Formats: sequence, structure tokens, C-alpha cells
Amino acid sequence: MSMDVEARLARLGLTLPDAPSPAANYAPYAIARGLAHISGQAPVRDGQFVATGRVGAEVTLEAAQAAARLCGLNILAQVKAAAGGDWSRVRRCVRICGYVSSVPGFYEQPKVLDGCSDLMVQALGDAGRHARSALGVAALRGNVPVVIDAIFELVD
Amino acid sequence: MSMDVEARLARLGLTLPDAPSPAANYAPYAIARGLAHISGQAPVRDGQFVATGRVGAEVTLEAAQAAARLCGLNILAQVKAAAGGDWSRVRRCVRICGYVSSVPGFYEQPKVLDGCSDLMVQALGDAGRHARSALGVAALRGNVPVVIDAIFELVD
Amino acid sequence: MSMDVEARLARLGLTLPDAPSPAANYAPYAIARGLAHISGQAPVRDGQFVATGRVGAEVTLEAAQAAARLCGLNILAQVKAAAGGDWSRVRRCVRICGYVSSVPGFYEQPKVLDGCSDLMVQALGDAGRHARSALGVAALRGNVPVVIDAIFELVD
Repeated sequence: MSMDVEARLARLGLTLPDAPSPAANYAPYAIARGLAHISGQAPVRDGQFVATGRVGAEVTLEAAQAAARLCGLNILAQVKAAAGGDWSRVRRCVRICGYVSSVPGFYEQPKVLDGCSDLMVQALGDAGRHARSALGVAALRGNVPVVIDAIFELVD
Repeated sequence: MSMDVEARLARLGLTLPDAPSPAANYAPYAIARGLAHISGQAPVRDGQFVATGRVGAEVTLEAAQAAARLCGLNILAQVKAAAGGDWSRVRRCVRICGYVSSVPGFYEQPKVLDGCSDLMVQALGDAGRHARSALGVAALRGNVPVVIDAIFELVD
Repeated sequence: MSMDVEARLARLGLTLPDAPSPAANYAPYAIARGLAHISGQAPVRDGQFVATGRVGAEVTLEAAQAAARLCGLNILAQVKAAAGGDWSRVRRCVRICGYVSSVPGFYEQPKVLDGCSDLMVQALGDAGRHARSALGVAALRGNVPVVIDAIFELVD
């Protein structure tokens, strides 16, 4: 992977945040066998949730996409930490799984998650293309509209 | 794994479909460290959903099992593509996770997923035996009753 | 990892149960590329669910935490089986994902899962620290309040 991840983000007007602290007694990531498992990331900025509520009710599709993008930015912050701050140690985004707090009748979970998936490709190029699952869940911590976790491959 | 996966399917009256296209901006599978992560597959045939609605309401258990079986067939189509069309490169099904769109009070998610799990064993023999999680979700893309993703091990 | 996992559990007044049988046609765990994928474990003891209902309604936060702890104990039983009964073959807990059957308005999924995460650290020390995702789902098999699955790294 090229080293210009943060330059690419800057061209999008984005700055990599500090990696958020876990919500409870777990690690923000764990590395085993060359795979970094990133804990579920919420749409949090500077320690505050930027959106709360269920998508299809209090949260619009557009706001949910922006929230998913912020989840993705937090994932990238965790990945950088997992790689010891060295982007050349990050080989690719393997998979994301997105949990969208959904009212009955809301079926656009894939469009919500594109907020994160698009960011991965914008930031990492071909190395950002990943497998994905999207589901509509009943509730998420702090009433956030979306949480996303990820698996990245690291270089040995 | 023996090479007769598609012969086994044929004996069940099944033909491997073309691998479905992703629903949005992601890859149908991603391979890292010998593991192929397959994106969530819906009960789609020839580009059309074969069932919509929640299990326990508009969708019966039997229809949901058939839908899960079709998810499994689409997973196998993706696995074949991930292996470059060569079944001898597929070592085993490691894990599936199934998301069942469930009305409150429907608790038979495992029976739904057996539609997929049974297919894996029928198609792959012992190599089809896998770890599994099953959950009842609030909503899925396109109002489908079930989505299933998977991890397969490939041969080096 | 030190070999005293079961001694640590004994100091907590806990005994490792027999590894529960799967709820349907799947394996309790599957090992590939040094990673053991543990199937979703329910709060079952001696073949009986110890709690049923949704968290935030029939099941209190405290009861859900105890149920999550029991899920964790069953995960450890499966891990021991996956390692052939030899704890020295278990390197670490990599990731858990917890599914909490939640009424609308219940947002404390992380506190529920701490029942399992705390147990992992108590039983395994630093090797028990893991990545995690927590979600509130619509329904789970047998109406249990929580199901948790896991990935562990084994020694070659």
C-alpha cells in the first residue's frame, strides 16, 4: 500500500482522529496471524456521538451515511495504531461488517454502509476493496445509528 | 476436497448459479492469509429476490429454510470464483453467520440456517462442517428474510 | 499462556462445564490457519437455558451480565476442546461478538458483554484481552437474552 493514506484523506478535507477508546472492558483491536481485528467503531468525534437514533426515524439516510463515514475514519485510526503508526505495514481492508439501527421497514442498509466503504477505497485505493455484510439491528450502544467493525491484513 | 462439488449439487437437482454481483460498493469476496471472506449473500436468483418479508410473519419457516439454502448456493458460487474456478483449491467451510429477519417471538433461527448448513455438508462432505452463529435481526436489505456470510479456507 | 486457566476459574468459584452440543447441524468450533472459530454460545447450563427474554424487559441488566458470563464459560469449554484439552496450545482470545436480545430503548449492550469480557481476562490474563463488537438484536434462538461467539488463536 502506498504511504499517502493521510494525504488522500486531507484531499477529502478529512483528518485522522485519535483512535477512540473502547466503550468497555475490551481492546480497540487485536492482531493474530497477520489479521488485525478492529472492534466495532461508533460515529464518535472528540468523545461525543455525532448522531443518535434509528435510521428511518430520527436519523435520515444521508445522516446515517455520514455517520458510517465517521465510523470508517475511526476504523482507519485504529488500523494505524495496530500497524504501529506505519501505513506501509497495512496490506489491505479484508472485510467490514456494519450494524445499522433500523426501524421496521427500512431496507437501505447497503446505502448506509457505502459511507464507510467509499471512504476505504478513497483512502486506500484498491487495497480498500473489501468483503462486507450489512444488517439492520434493534439497538446499539448509546442509541447510535450505526456501528462498524473490520478486519485488515497487515504485512509480516 | 474432492472435485465433485458440482456433481453432488446436480444429484440434488441444483445448478451452481453465476456469482451474484454485490449490492453496493464492495467486493463479493476478499482473500487474506489463506481465508476467503465471502460477503453476505441474499436469497437472489437470476437477479431477483425469491422471498421478501420477515420470518414468522410473511415468510414461513419452510420458505425461510429454502431461502437460506439459496443463500448457501450463492455462497458456493462466490467460493468457486474466489478459488479461480478450481474446487481443489477449496479446503473447507470454516464458519457461516446467518442474519434472519425475525418478528418478535420467532426463535427458530437455527432451523432457518440449517437450510444453508445442510447444503454445505451435502455439497462438500466433511469439508462442509463449520462453526456458526445465528441471529434474528430487525431488517435486511430489500426486505429479504435471510442473509448469510461465510469464511472458507483455501489451499495455498 | 500459563496452564492455570482452570485454577483461576476455581478461585472465582467456577468450574468449566462440558462443551455444549450445537443447537443444530453445525460444529461447535472449526480451526483454520491457526484460528479457532467458536460457534455462538448461549447461556446454557446442564442443557437448560438459565435465562430467557429480552434485556430491558423480562431480563435485567444484572441477569444479562450473568448470562453473558455463562456464554463466556461455554466459550472457554469449546476452546479447551478445540485445543485438544491442552491449555498450553491456546495463545489468546482475539475477538468476541455479542448479540443481545434488546427491547427498543435498551442501549447498554457493552455492559452486558462485560460479563463475558471480564471473565476472559480473569481466566486468561493478558491473553484474554480481545477486540469486540456488541449489538442489540431482535430475537435469538430459544428466546435467550444473549449469544456470544469468538475467535481464538492457537499455538502451531
